[in-house]
Amino acid sequence: MTKHSQIDIKIAESFAKQGLMGTLGARLLHAHEGEVTIEILPNDSISQQHGFIHAGALAAIGDSACGYAAMSLSPPDKAVLTVEFKVSLMAPAIGDRFQARAQVIKPGRKLHFAQADIFAIEDAQERLIARLSATITTVDQSRFPTTN
Amino acid sequence: MTKHSQIDIKIAESFAKQGLMGTLGARLLHAHEGEVTIEILPNDSISQQHGFIHAGALAAIGDSACGYAAMSLSPPDKAVLTVEFKVSLMAPAIGDRFQARAQVIKPGRKLHFAQADIFAIEDAQERLIARLSATITTVDQSRFPTTN
Amino acid sequence: MTKHSQIDIKIAESFAKQGLMGTLGARLLHAHEGEVTIEILPNDSISQQHGFIHAGALAAIGDSACGYAAMSLSPPDKAVLTVEFKVSLMAPAIGDRFQARAQVIKPGRKLHFAQADIFAIEDAQERLIARLSATITTVDQSRFPTTN
Amino acid sequence: MTKHSQIDIKIAESFAKQGLMGTLGARLLHAHEGEVTIEILPNDSISQQHGFIHAGALAAIGDSACGYAAMSLSPPDKAVLTVEFKVSLMAPAIGDRFQARAQVIKPGRKLHFAQADIFAIEDAQERLIARLSATITTVDQSRFPTTN
Repeated sequence: MTKHSQIDIKIAESFAKQGLMGTLGARLLHAHEGEVTIEILPNDSISQQHGFIHAGALAAIGDSACGYAAMSLSPPDKAVLTVEFKVSLMAPAIGDRFQARAQVIKPGRKLHFAQADIFAIEDAQERLIARLSATITTVDQSRFPTTN
Repeated sequence: MTKHSQIDIKIAESFAKQGLMGTLGARLLHAHEGEVTIEILPNDSISQQHGFIHAGALAAIGDSACGYAAMSLSPPDKAVLTVEFKVSLMAPAIGDRFQARAQVIKPGRKLHFAQADIFAIEDAQERLIARLSATITTVDQSRFPTTN
Repeated sequence: MTKHSQIDIKIAESFAKQGLMGTLGARLLHAHEGEVTIEILPNDSISQQHGFIHAGALAAIGDSACGYAAMSLSPPDKAVLTVEFKVSLMAPAIGDRFQARAQVIKPGRKLHFAQADIFAIEDAQERLIARLSATITTVDQSRFPTTN
Repeated sequence: MTKHSQIDIKIAESFAKQGLMGTLGARLLHAHEGEVTIEILPNDSISQQHGFIHAGALAAIGDSACGYAAMSLSPPDKAVLTVEFKVSLMAPAIGDRFQARAQVIKPGRKLHFAQADIFAIEDAQERLIARLSATITTVDQSRFPTTN
């Protein structure tokens, strides 16, 4: 087993432990070397009052995607925690599905800078509807002994 | 019925239409004249991988609280949409319950600036664990004819 | 004279009125259809305490570049004002010169979303040292009768 | 000499080394235990195109104020660096003078969260015109051997 696939498995296991991702119906589509994609489907259970996807759901998948992109570039004994993120909501979240595609813009030993572009996909067309920028910190995995 | 209570009712009706708030188990505790409080309880279904509340869930209640604080100061024929928000995650989200307390810092005709402080409450003690700052825009309600 | 060159001239004239750009020694290198580049050179007069360029100077050129990128896509009778921006400072600002390269990510009638990548250039090599995301609003030029 | 006054002196010495603060005509009015105030006066040399103070100048004093507020709570052998900040520009920067009043919202060993409220003061009246939230990291002073 290669180093990369070990990290991919670590990310998949961690993703499965994020209760919120399950609740939102989110799927981890891709996770590899600084790039992670998470998808959600439209659903009344994640809407805001006008029927669009709630910004909080978009922020959740964007934040998780950034965190896992950072994890994919961190040593195996490190956990990641989001320090802060900003999300710009550029268009209403209307579509057949929504993908947060994160990449690490600048990796670091203590801090990673990551960005997630969030697309609405409809009839095979993609629209950029939101962009999230995050600062992620690494902490010793040993601080969270029973979890990944 | 006073003008204020009409707006309070409008907010409560809109909150009830936010599917995500129901999914998160969020409750609207308070909504009045530029100040709104939304609460969630800890639950595996809204966790991240270490068992803390996921930042996306905190962001969701902070964003909704800011949006409704803005709505409470907007004319009745206006809907509100979040333009962007930033959330700083200052401490792990561990506690018996979590409250996002939003207030409008600077109201405007076209744009509102709002802030939500998010507290973890445990054994009657409160800790500020996150702060969210949002820009909210107002749009004509008529653009969303069938909803609030 | 084409419509585009008129807007380019409007931007150059407005840039010349920004006292802070002159004070920072900033130069408008490029301004056209949603893309604007502003450059500063290292100088003790714009430093922070360790001798790097102060984040405020980087923010200033990033903000102006975003504003003018938005102006380049706005009708001639509109002025632009920054609503908010966030800047991530990913590496120390050390180099021979610094360029903020802005583009409008999502133009709008009332709100533009723009981003500026800030590069340090040294020995013909570029490093991305900062990224700024901005929300820009348009207002009637007539509100500022004596200025551009 | 008390511990606190030593830190106050360290901050004053560092502030004097920030070339940009001198260039902006900024004055350090107050620096003590997590709270720092920096003032600038209106001046054509720090304006934007409509004659208001440029957002970059406001961001600069807000960022420096947050950084020094963080420094005031950090051990003497630590330097501070801004990781990121967001500034909301809530009203035009018109006034007789402008003060950025920063405080540390949540201090930490590796990361501080700070906020600066920026006021326009005119005829003894204060208006909140901007709010800046910053994440500050601490690094060993020894990485910057010749400076504070």
